[in-house]
Amino acid sequence: MTIALIASRPTLADQATLSPIVDSADKVLRFDWPALHIGTGEYEEGPTGVTVFYFPHRALAAVDVRGGGPGTVNTDYLRLGYDTPELDAVVFSGGSWYGLESITAVGTALKDDGIRDGTWTNLALSVGAIIYDLGERRLNEIYPDKRLAQATFRAAQPGVFPLGAHGAGRFAKTGGLFGCNAYSGEGGAFRQVGEIKIAAFAVVNAFGVVARRDGRVAACYGDVKWAKDLRTVDLLAAYPASRKAGSALTSSANESRRNTTVSLVVTNEKLNPADLQRLATHVHSSMGRALQPFATEFDGDVLYAVSTGELDAANAASSFSTLDLDVTAAEVMWDAILASVPEQPAVTQTPALARATGKAADLRRYAGEYVFSPLVSVRITAAQNRLFAQATGARAAYAIGKDAPVELEPISATDFTVPGRYPLVVSFQQPGRLVMNPGHWEQIGTRKGTRRSD
Amino acid sequence: MTIALIASRPTLADQATLSPIVDSADKVLRFDWPALHIGTGEYEEGPTGVTVFYFPHRALAAVDVRGGGPGTVNTDYLRLGYDTPELDAVVFSGGSWYGLESITAVGTALKDDGIRDGTWTNLALSVGAIIYDLGERRLNEIYPDKRLAQATFRAAQPGVFPLGAHGAGRFAKTGGLFGCNAYSGEGGAFRQVGEIKIAAFAVVNAFGVVARRDGRVAACYGDVKWAKDLRTVDLLAAYPASRKAGSALTSSANESRRNTTVSLVVTNEKLNPADLQRLATHVHSSMGRALQPFATEFDGDVLYAVSTGELDAANAASSFSTLDLDVTAAEVMWDAILASVPEQPAVTQTPALARATGKAADLRRYAGEYVFSPLVSVRITAAQNRLFAQATGARAAYAIGKDAPVELEPISATDFTVPGRYPLVVSFQQPGRLVMNPGHWEQIGTRKGTRRSD
Amino acid sequence: MTIALIASRPTLADQATLSPIVDSADKVLRFDWPALHIGTGEYEEGPTGVTVFYFPHRALAAVDVRGGGPGTVNTDYLRLGYDTPELDAVVFSGGSWYGLESITAVGTALKDDGIRDGTWTNLALSVGAIIYDLGERRLNEIYPDKRLAQATFRAAQPGVFPLGAHGAGRFAKTGGLFGCNAYSGEGGAFRQVGEIKIAAFAVVNAFGVVARRDGRVAACYGDVKWAKDLRTVDLLAAYPASRKAGSALTSSANESRRNTTVSLVVTNEKLNPADLQRLATHVHSSMGRALQPFATEFDGDVLYAVSTGELDAANAASSFSTLDLDVTAAEVMWDAILASVPEQPAVTQTPALARATGKAADLRRYAGEYVFSPLVSVRITAAQNRLFAQATGARAAYAIGKDAPVELEPISATDFTVPGRYPLVVSFQQPGRLVMNPGHWEQIGTRKGTRRSD
Amino acid sequence: MTIALIASRPTLADQATLSPIVDSADKVLRFDWPALHIGTGEYEEGPTGVTVFYFPHRALAAVDVRGGGPGTVNTDYLRLGYDTPELDAVVFSGGSWYGLESITAVGTALKDDGIRDGTWTNLALSVGAIIYDLGERRLNEIYPDKRLAQATFRAAQPGVFPLGAHGAGRFAKTGGLFGCNAYSGEGGAFRQVGEIKIAAFAVVNAFGVVARRDGRVAACYGDVKWAKDLRTVDLLAAYPASRKAGSALTSSANESRRNTTVSLVVTNEKLNPADLQRLATHVHSSMGRALQPFATEFDGDVLYAVSTGELDAANAASSFSTLDLDVTAAEVMWDAILASVPEQPAVTQTPALARATGKAADLRRYAGEYVFSPLVSVRITAAQNRLFAQATGARAAYAIGKDAPVELEPISATDFTVPGRYPLVVSFQQPGRLVMNPGHWEQIGTRKGTRRSD
Repeated sequence: MTIALIASRPTLADQATLSPIVDSADKVLRFDWPALHIGTGEYEEGPTGVTVFYFPHRALAAVDVRGGGPGTVNTDYLRLGYDTPELDAVVFSGGSWYGLESITAVGTALKDDGIRDGTWTNLALSVGAIIYDLGERRLNEIYPDKRLAQATFRAAQPGVFPLGAHGAGRFAKTGGLFGCNAYSGEGGAFRQVGEIKIAAFAVVNAFGVVARRDGRVAACYGDVKWAKDLRTVDLLAAYPASRKAGSALTSSANESRRNTTVSLVVTNEKLNPADLQRLATHVHSSMGRALQPFATEFDGDVLYAVSTGELDAANAASSFSTLDLDVTAAEVMWDAILASVPEQPAVTQTPALARATGKAADLRRYAGEYVFSPLVSVRITAAQNRLFAQATGARAAYAIGKDAPVELEPISATDFTVPGRYPLVVSFQQPGRLVMNPGHWEQIGTRKGTRRSD
Repeated sequence: MTIALIASRPTLADQATLSPIVDSADKVLRFDWPALHIGTGEYEEGPTGVTVFYFPHRALAAVDVRGGGPGTVNTDYLRLGYDTPELDAVVFSGGSWYGLESITAVGTALKDDGIRDGTWTNLALSVGAIIYDLGERRLNEIYPDKRLAQATFRAAQPGVFPLGAHGAGRFAKTGGLFGCNAYSGEGGAFRQVGEIKIAAFAVVNAFGVVARRDGRVAACYGDVKWAKDLRTVDLLAAYPASRKAGSALTSSANESRRNTTVSLVVTNEKLNPADLQRLATHVHSSMGRALQPFATEFDGDVLYAVSTGELDAANAASSFSTLDLDVTAAEVMWDAILASVPEQPAVTQTPALARATGKAADLRRYAGEYVFSPLVSVRITAAQNRLFAQATGARAAYAIGKDAPVELEPISATDFTVPGRYPLVVSFQQPGRLVMNPGHWEQIGTRKGTRRSD
Repeated sequence: MTIALIASRPTLADQATLSPIVDSADKVLRFDWPALHIGTGEYEEGPTGVTVFYFPHRALAAVDVRGGGPGTVNTDYLRLGYDTPELDAVVFSGGSWYGLESITAVGTALKDDGIRDGTWTNLALSVGAIIYDLGERRLNEIYPDKRLAQATFRAAQPGVFPLGAHGAGRFAKTGGLFGCNAYSGEGGAFRQVGEIKIAAFAVVNAFGVVARRDGRVAACYGDVKWAKDLRTVDLLAAYPASRKAGSALTSSANESRRNTTVSLVVTNEKLNPADLQRLATHVHSSMGRALQPFATEFDGDVLYAVSTGELDAANAASSFSTLDLDVTAAEVMWDAILASVPEQPAVTQTPALARATGKAADLRRYAGEYVFSPLVSVRITAAQNRLFAQATGARAAYAIGKDAPVELEPISATDFTVPGRYPLVVSFQQPGRLVMNPGHWEQIGTRKGTRRSD
Repeated sequence: MTIALIASRPTLADQATLSPIVDSADKVLRFDWPALHIGTGEYEEGPTGVTVFYFPHRALAAVDVRGGGPGTVNTDYLRLGYDTPELDAVVFSGGSWYGLESITAVGTALKDDGIRDGTWTNLALSVGAIIYDLGERRLNEIYPDKRLAQATFRAAQPGVFPLGAHGAGRFAKTGGLFGCNAYSGEGGAFRQVGEIKIAAFAVVNAFGVVARRDGRVAACYGDVKWAKDLRTVDLLAAYPASRKAGSALTSSANESRRNTTVSLVVTNEKLNPADLQRLATHVHSSMGRALQPFATEFDGDVLYAVSTGELDAANAASSFSTLDLDVTAAEVMWDAILASVPEQPAVTQTPALARATGKAADLRRYAGEYVFSPLVSVRITAAQNRLFAQATGARAAYAIGKDAPVELEPISATDFTVPGRYPLVVSFQQPGRLVMNPGHWEQIGTRKGTRRSD
């Protein structure tokens, strides 16, 4: 018998250099429920992230899978219908199937930290689902990994849930089917009816749009010909003309097609497995109102329903039946979905500075090749007082394509734009760095030859 | 070995005396599609009925079950995912689980008529689902049976689908959760996009209400305090206060709780099993918009998706993808659901004739005990120029309860009413008969001692 | 609105002329369990039949579907995992998908007889599954229908279960994969451990063979080259050479390919839905020992597990765990499968009477065309002291094919045989009738021109 | 918005110190199939391990879950029935649910190594399942983690599969139900029929025993009263008496109860999703022969079926049908299961050295407290020329319990035993170390105060 050590091969992406951070966010949902801890962690370099729902006293769980491309962990166990509360955590993650590592990592963290062990009645049960936040929306392919997920789990706390583009929803988008390209995020809502608590959470990355209760679309970079007050019924009545060109072809032409909404509904009411499954089925069915269309071939929609079992309603002789719970939870979920929508960056104004005011010398200092990731690089060239950009890697960088240079129109001394349906700001404010869309969803490229410490 | 003939025991209900009829209806959907034959049969004595969708050239089918109390036949076979078209018929029926007999009866009719036989590649495949149209909404428990289903199958024809309270939707209702008590029925819609045909059919018997695309409730006998222009968002925002008292308790107090929407989407596009299942999942998920709430514990929602396979879109190089098919079919289904709503009988006017104008002698001729079914009888008594009614069987008869007599207020010489949220007309126009709610949903009682031929 | 009466079209097979009979059988399983009533009914003209398991006090049920071609009723409801006992009956039937009518018919019988009604907490729940006993094994396509199933239900009684070729197993066969062509039937076994009762029943119509616990094949008309003491391991080691020629081709050449084993395990122990489902899964998984191979593409295997809930083992502090129940029930099921095997008719002896002893005049009186069903007729001709037979309908009649006459070799004055792997006796003992395989599995043809009362 | 770095908390088990090794094993299965690479990695310190099946050209996969406690990744996606080959890897792992990390880690390794990326048509699809190899069988809770799984994946190669206690089967056991406590492992078998290749692999950790084709149990430390030539039929006939005391109680008394057999069947034949699912269902159903009992509440059995699609049998006009494939694959799987059984360590002989020959001074040098893991420590004491052992941590160490010291009987100068049903050797051959069961399944404890480099 021969024994050999396995050497690790070098890898394209070095996720090990990334720093997990807890994003405490400007806007949060606050609620009182000690049995539910929430952690939201991110790699800003993606940006991408993970959201951990941790139940320190264990809970009972059910799952409902409806999307055409789901990514899940340990759902088969939930389907066996045992009535023993065994669930420790539900984990949602960005990074598509690569983000599944986040889900299993919370399970191993529970063991490594001594919270659970190998006794078969004390095994850690971590389940979850992922969203697709890769493709052309980001200029890199960083994904939430074991290190990020475990750090996030360890920082989980009760009572606070960040709203908007945070955690697993850090780079979520909605409305791709219609070309809306709206930034999205994670939403949460909480309602208490007597002693019964209901919380709903959703990482909203739907191929369809988010619909308000009055029928209007919550966020969309619309076509110029579209009405200002965009309504879902109008978009659907005009379908397939309202569909973005190319976005529904079966070929692989359009990478942005893969989407997913993953969601969680939690109640403190003690439910048996059949009633908990009904809660899952009912709430998931109701989400077709808030997301239109919902559960398409290009979504991977998964909903978990969890009962912490703290309140035995059967004993409480409640007049709030399981049906009431289901119907109410569906409304709370709609609230949660609406709460996921962040403020959208404004479409860049008409270029503020006349081209003439620029000086060739000033523009030339921006020239160079900026690397965003092994997949995406952008070459900046200056000519005749004008600045141009062209993608030189494997992929385009938003409106900066690979075929020919596009002109960057100045909006300030350091910032430029490429006019179009979607906002695109290109900023040279940091020396040696090219920042696309500065702000919450920024993507940073480093000029070749620039040292990291510059 | 002993052999004995089995004698048939007498039964409570003699379904054998009923006459199957084809109801050609005033309002129909017409469309051109020879590969789909439709039959709609009824027992007027219920009334209740069955709707048969027959595919003479066989088809491929998938099923999606979402309700809390479904009744189905042969769905396990569909789930195996074979790509050979083997489906002969989808059958929807009233009569709750008793109506399952209608589904199997179409299968045996196919054999008895020599269309299919016992060769294992030529077996008849009939699938289907049922709705609950029993309980307090009808004063009898007649159900669609083998005889009715086979007669209906044999009368099936292409291109015509009756809309409203016909076939399996003959005594459907919606909105029971809110106490709406609206009459419902079966709806259908058809759309053609290029060569692609899409038809949707639904027997709408939802516990929730039917929602129009503008958010208004399509039909509901509302509470007097409710707004005239009832909207689903308002009903749900006010939930559970908007719920009918008692209608969501887990006890069996309220028999009207069991509902169901069964539906069918058909396309001529040749689909593989995965795409057909996606069509089923997507369209069923979308129905939470048109029916609110949808897929509750007290619904038994089942959707079948069928591909006749006449059009091979892959060969046609169509720009209408399977996603386009799914999204469009969901809209056609919403159209179908809206088309199911019949005109509701007007709430009875304030009594037209003063009580004083009645004559005691005239009213006394109505007195007697009227039998509606082994379950329901009503005793009519006249006293002091006033007419009273009391239920004497096992069950109440609408607003005529078992505990005490209620006064019947005159609206004509022969017709009376009991004022309330729901229309109730009691008519003595036919000698020896008491007709409740004369018209399409009438229930007929016969006075004891009256011969049938009177 | 026009209303028209639907006229019934004439049908090929007139099932209405058949007489339901109760077959009390020579060999029965007897056991003491009042909560389980069993009825076994047959149409001798097929022969084919139905077996009804009726639970007068209702029960909880689970289902496990494993075969490639199942036929089922109402399984979706069982999968919802409710813990309320609602099951009234499990019905097994011959007749392939046409026999599904038997299952729904027991549901309507429960209502027609006033045992259940339309109240939604008192609906009849009848589930079941079918076997394929059509194709070339029978010379007609009679199937168990509503009339037979309802008569059988009404004759159900506790404590007795007929063993062998009875009820749904009336014309079951096993071992088709290897060409065994063994007659099969329904088997049952009962075991009591302390207060815990376990019963198992199976209608064994497997494509594979029945295996004894010592590894030997229970019944098979083997190839002449095969060992007398046929063992499953040898058959499988020699596979695919041991397969009957043609029997595993994907073409439709061989009609006998469709098979199915449907089974039921019942316990009086009160189980929750998860434990009951585990019982179903475990026992069904174990059946691969007794039936080899099991759950093929050409089987439609379905198992129901039922808990009558009479014994609350949790309270009884039993040392007999749910695992013990599962493991023991799997053994009881093997017993049940073994009990299904009837005594096989002996292969006909070498013709007993010399051909020379026959007289031409005697043989000529047998000549004529005998009709077995609209599908099968046999023409008998006599020539030169020899008798010949040829199939003249749509199908062959066992070894009597359509292409050319085969000689019938005499074994008595009235009985003849066609030598071969399988027993075939042709008898003219009854005037005007041709009886194939006289005895329990006989098929009777009537000579054209012969009146029924002859 | 505040941003904070998350600090890692210290953990009980430091998996980071472990060294992944490739175990090339003495006994391997060799076969020619470049489309399937296999890696087998282990942490000897457990010992525990992982087995990776990598399909470099992608493949189509189906899954069948039958056990009562499965652990799975991404099975929901497989169930959607797409016919595009997307599978990259099937990963089996020890470590119970903690080993799920191994499955997701292979997915991220595929991306990190640049084999797959974030393009939605090029995502890595890694699925898998785990076995329970924790509890009382090992004196530590080391589990296969991301590092081990990625190293194993990177070392995968075609054509070789280690047999016995290797990879995911490194510390598998069988027969716990009967107290057999037999060492088990991973098995594989390969068969080629014409151009069709069939491979089967199983990590056999069943609660039941492995059955040979002649009915004998393949491995079991039997009760002294049992027959030497133990047969499954006898064990089951004697059930529940043959069950190990306590092993089937529902309480958590016996930690060894959780088991699982995870398996994989691979063919080069191109199959559609329905046929591939049938292969999975059929083969999994057949495994109840080789493992008795199978699919119990305490197993978590999962089978994956994979088609590499290299051979289009439809074009090849093969006479080997999908049924033939299924039946043959079931036999290959039985072969694989039999090949998993390693040679069992002999039960220790009667102590070879008389107690009297020992010298008190010699024995005292073994005294001390030996730490196996944070869970298990053993205190060795010497008294009157006799050596004693007692477990001092949270758990017992095999026959060395926590309640009282047991005497260690000498079998050599350095080795001792505790007589009993199971082999237990305790060795002091290495200074400062206590080795339990020296050899392939050894567990090593370090004396407190001993430096690692001693």
